[in-house]
Amino acid sequence: MIDVAVFGAGRIGKIHAGNLVMQPGVRLKYVSDVNVQAAQELASKHGAQVVSIDAALEDSSVGAVLIASSTDTHADLILRAVAAGKAIFCEKPVDLTLERAKACAQAVADAKVTCMIGFQRRFDPTFEALKTRLAAGEIGDPEMLIVTSRDPGAPPVSYLKSSGGIFKDMLIHDFDIFRWILDDEAVSISATGSCLSDPAIAEAGDIDSAVVTIRTRRGRLCQINTSRRAAYGYDQRFEVLGSQGMLQAGNHKPTEVVSSTAHNVSQDLPEHFFLERYRAAYAREIAHFFDVLVNGGTARTTIDDGVKALALAEAATLSWRENRTIDLSK
Amino acid sequence: MIDVAVFGAGRIGKIHAGNLVMQPGVRLKYVSDVNVQAAQELASKHGAQVVSIDAALEDSSVGAVLIASSTDTHADLILRAVAAGKAIFCEKPVDLTLERAKACAQAVADAKVTCMIGFQRRFDPTFEALKTRLAAGEIGDPEMLIVTSRDPGAPPVSYLKSSGGIFKDMLIHDFDIFRWILDDEAVSISATGSCLSDPAIAEAGDIDSAVVTIRTRRGRLCQINTSRRAAYGYDQRFEVLGSQGMLQAGNHKPTEVVSSTAHNVSQDLPEHFFLERYRAAYAREIAHFFDVLVNGGTARTTIDDGVKALALAEAATLSWRENRTIDLSK
Amino acid sequence: MIDVAVFGAGRIGKIHAGNLVMQPGVRLKYVSDVNVQAAQELASKHGAQVVSIDAALEDSSVGAVLIASSTDTHADLILRAVAAGKAIFCEKPVDLTLERAKACAQAVADAKVTCMIGFQRRFDPTFEALKTRLAAGEIGDPEMLIVTSRDPGAPPVSYLKSSGGIFKDMLIHDFDIFRWILDDEAVSISATGSCLSDPAIAEAGDIDSAVVTIRTRRGRLCQINTSRRAAYGYDQRFEVLGSQGMLQAGNHKPTEVVSSTAHNVSQDLPEHFFLERYRAAYAREIAHFFDVLVNGGTARTTIDDGVKALALAEAATLSWRENRTIDLSK
Amino acid sequence: MIDVAVFGAGRIGKIHAGNLVMQPGVRLKYVSDVNVQAAQELASKHGAQVVSIDAALEDSSVGAVLIASSTDTHADLILRAVAAGKAIFCEKPVDLTLERAKACAQAVADAKVTCMIGFQRRFDPTFEALKTRLAAGEIGDPEMLIVTSRDPGAPPVSYLKSSGGIFKDMLIHDFDIFRWILDDEAVSISATGSCLSDPAIAEAGDIDSAVVTIRTRRGRLCQINTSRRAAYGYDQRFEVLGSQGMLQAGNHKPTEVVSSTAHNVSQDLPEHFFLERYRAAYAREIAHFFDVLVNGGTARTTIDDGVKALALAEAATLSWRENRTIDLSK
Repeated sequence: MIDVAVFGAGRIGKIHAGNLVMQPGVRLKYVSDVNVQAAQELASKHGAQVVSIDAALEDSSVGAVLIASSTDTHADLILRAVAAGKAIFCEKPVDLTLERAKACAQAVADAKVTCMIGFQRRFDPTFEALKTRLAAGEIGDPEMLIVTSRDPGAPPVSYLKSSGGIFKDMLIHDFDIFRWILDDEAVSISATGSCLSDPAIAEAGDIDSAVVTIRTRRGRLCQINTSRRAAYGYDQRFEVLGSQGMLQAGNHKPTEVVSSTAHNVSQDLPEHFFLERYRAAYAREIAHFFDVLVNGGTARTTIDDGVKALALAEAATLSWRENRTIDLSK
Repeated sequence: MIDVAVFGAGRIGKIHAGNLVMQPGVRLKYVSDVNVQAAQELASKHGAQVVSIDAALEDSSVGAVLIASSTDTHADLILRAVAAGKAIFCEKPVDLTLERAKACAQAVADAKVTCMIGFQRRFDPTFEALKTRLAAGEIGDPEMLIVTSRDPGAPPVSYLKSSGGIFKDMLIHDFDIFRWILDDEAVSISATGSCLSDPAIAEAGDIDSAVVTIRTRRGRLCQINTSRRAAYGYDQRFEVLGSQGMLQAGNHKPTEVVSSTAHNVSQDLPEHFFLERYRAAYAREIAHFFDVLVNGGTARTTIDDGVKALALAEAATLSWRENRTIDLSK
Repeated sequence: MIDVAVFGAGRIGKIHAGNLVMQPGVRLKYVSDVNVQAAQELASKHGAQVVSIDAALEDSSVGAVLIASSTDTHADLILRAVAAGKAIFCEKPVDLTLERAKACAQAVADAKVTCMIGFQRRFDPTFEALKTRLAAGEIGDPEMLIVTSRDPGAPPVSYLKSSGGIFKDMLIHDFDIFRWILDDEAVSISATGSCLSDPAIAEAGDIDSAVVTIRTRRGRLCQINTSRRAAYGYDQRFEVLGSQGMLQAGNHKPTEVVSSTAHNVSQDLPEHFFLERYRAAYAREIAHFFDVLVNGGTARTTIDDGVKALALAEAATLSWRENRTIDLSK
Repeated sequence: MIDVAVFGAGRIGKIHAGNLVMQPGVRLKYVSDVNVQAAQELASKHGAQVVSIDAALEDSSVGAVLIASSTDTHADLILRAVAAGKAIFCEKPVDLTLERAKACAQAVADAKVTCMIGFQRRFDPTFEALKTRLAAGEIGDPEMLIVTSRDPGAPPVSYLKSSGGIFKDMLIHDFDIFRWILDDEAVSISATGSCLSDPAIAEAGDIDSAVVTIRTRRGRLCQINTSRRAAYGYDQRFEVLGSQGMLQAGNHKPTEVVSSTAHNVSQDLPEHFFLERYRAAYAREIAHFFDVLVNGGTARTTIDDGVKALALAEAATLSWRENRTIDLSK
């Protein structure tokens, strides 16, 4: 039996808690949150106790911690959990600064603990099937990757101000997908963007529309396009052109109803946002985490992946700000 | 050079004339129609002359006639063209009575002239590709055929009154598709129907919605569903279930635009009616007719096919009227 | 807290047990099965006890029973549960004979207990969305219903021999869908079929391919086509033609990967069989059952629905055997 | 009656000739080509004469010339045709050097003759429908444009050497689509590329895979991805994200057959190459050209469009060679 402490009882903490209690041999023992009421509700739901983070880390029966608190707490909690010898599952990003993220990664490496980062998209059934088929050679060698990643609408500007900007907040997922799907690393990155939906986003120093170009060591090309606003919902697609064909990952629809009227032939909008689209992915990443803890092996998304995605996000931010291509080959 | 006379300068006559003048080695020499003005316009467009049917048939330089006049004239014109030794392309149906259609077929057989019936659907690129792939064994032996055949809207009741009823007017095409796709013959047929869109159709002794079940010699099953009214346009689909899979023929769309809005994800309606959907099929059946005349061989749609489709239409009409399954095994 | 006894610890019993323990306020107290080991395993998994059916029914704390044992036990268990005053969820069919099914329905009505029948398809997200949109008038009045219902492969002939035949075993679901979607009743039914995949099925007195035509009180038309074998998997589609358009329910795919190679552009096969396709439906029907128990109201699928679907299956069997249309208008 | 001279009797010259003879009131009078046999064959087919270019231009009865000869002759022929006062339809590109293209445009402007450039994609039914719906406001203001443009395979290296490079040879169409769809102009362009399919292309100083990013005056973003090789055929798609939705233009398929086997559910590959995909577009652009000559108005694709697309191609080439973003705002 693995006893687990969850740090953070917000939206994503609740999802992870709900998934971890479904794992055989796993028990949610503690919930911690600065919002005590939220912690209490989540703990009650799953028969866990509310304790302080310190208390949770000091309990030697706790084998793993799940960090789902606000981004600015991630690095500190990782370091404390490492020090306590716990296995760690931490939501992305590791931190908003590359330096601190690297320090965490070093600590994890030194302590040889498992530290998995929540890039749940790698566990999406469609994305994972595409990756498996690509790796099996279905379309030969990959040559180009086109990633489309659009949210249904922008979060409040207050959130955006502390988000680290669109590249660290939104595109970090796409940078991880890029690395995972192509199994390759960037040698240069170029980004540009605009604020088209709401001037308040520009006033906050951010953009709502961004496009990124990446070249890889092997000469492959990747284009990413992102928007904070897609009127039709959450748009999460990518396609890989290979030497022998193309694999595309399309959106998921809630139902397979097709309606033909005098106006058109229509289908459902994509599943509306990440909680719907990645419901299965969230469940599967938690199952994977505990599978690694029980059966060994390396987590599919390590803290190094978290550091590398963050490095790309920093470089993209710099490219956008200074309007130049960033050389990453050194 | 094959000189051709076209009998009938209406909607379908114009289409056939436009297609035949595109064939190398084929010339439109004469146009005949009881509507002299229509004949004159069509003749002028293609540099042909307006003559009487007698005159056209008496001209020994005329190698082929194309019968696109009203249904009640088909049988008579076939017999006269046979007597004159012309090759014949005749629009479906051969006649509204099975007896007269059989007499025509006998005359054609005795004279050994080519007589092709305008079941243009056999020349539709999608339908023909499906047939070719089925014959190549892609899905093993066919077991079931489901045919959907719906018009965008009913013609005037005045037309319906002389149409021979929905089974002879609309489903005759589906009966031909059934025989062609399965390469098999019916041993029993059962039909029922309703009048759901317009009481005037019922008053005219007809129905607007019909479903038919056919069993074949080899035990295969076919279901046909038809309606005079589909609000979304012309619906022409069928699917074949085989021992190793399924082949489906879908509708054609005018464009490949996909629109995603806050409401839904939509595509074009099907091509609106038969003139659009079967534009390519009409051109290809005429090319086939002249190819047979020049290079020999049997036309893909013979007058026997016309007789057999009509026999099914008569049996379906009887089944509907008497509410019983008709045995065709004898 | 509602305590529940599950009768039957086989494949479907396990699914229902797994779903009912997820319901808030519901506890799996007892499991009964003639296969004691199966009962023990299922009970252990959910912290329940293995008891005899008598013991379970005698425990007044048990509020509901879930009958997932073999078909020939359903009627008896329903009657005993009614006598014990329990709410009942029973897998389809109520019984293989209409007489016994009607007796059960009468007992349920007399006792005024809730008795829901497991027509899970009514809870499939796609089917339910279609029904909701149809009821909202999206395509006007329904006129035709085309149901396609094909299994990936036939069960063992030993199973088929006690299955009641294809109409009671497979099409009973389609008969229920027909009644539910059109909100109408049959006035006549006509069925035919063939044995095309395996002569052993014919030797067992059954068929593997069936087509059915139903007319309704309001003159609507329904066609159902079924096969025991679809090489491409579980095919569960239907479409409704209405006065203002068409609604279609398509198959579900495991992923949204599209592959384009030198050969073709391909997508996933449909979800393979009913356990995959109706996973969500099974969960939602159990949630609905307990929602009705707690909050009142009528279950979406009553024992009367079970009786009426069975009556259609009996009539279809008779139609097939005697090769005639069965009049159900009286 | 407009008499026309066609310069160039190669693949594209034949297509244009075949389309122009279908226009009412248009006659193909002359064909010129350095390959006299090709000229003779094309002339014979349409009842035209083979003459020298000088002779064709000197014939005052010739109202229009259609330039479909090799790219290096375009500018010279445009200038000579302008001097002769002929209306001009010229295949893209105007020239491989921007300077000469601009000189042609100036000559055309001074002479006030019609000079249409063969950007046939603007006449593709799908692309044109998308443009019309975008302009009608269906998805609000456009914000992003993603263009996918891939050939089924690379032409011979000997051709590539005189092609002007991938940006002038292939992407010039995409640059035109960009300007047309967004109705906006570039302020910066950034391109990168790789040679992944054949080292001989790199040795010839070219690339086979290219990605381009464009920013517009209004802050919109455009990404283009191109490859000389797509194993699945000719891939011509684009999508526009707007403030209220998205419009996508998909590939065209030869047929609407869907095949479901034990392996997958598959559809046709896209139409194989430009002659198939843009068959309708070629016909429609020629019809448009003569419509403008007869009825007045400005051609949809002017020589200025040719100059502007070429300017983008030159800037993209420079960006790729010097690995920097090119500022086009001045």
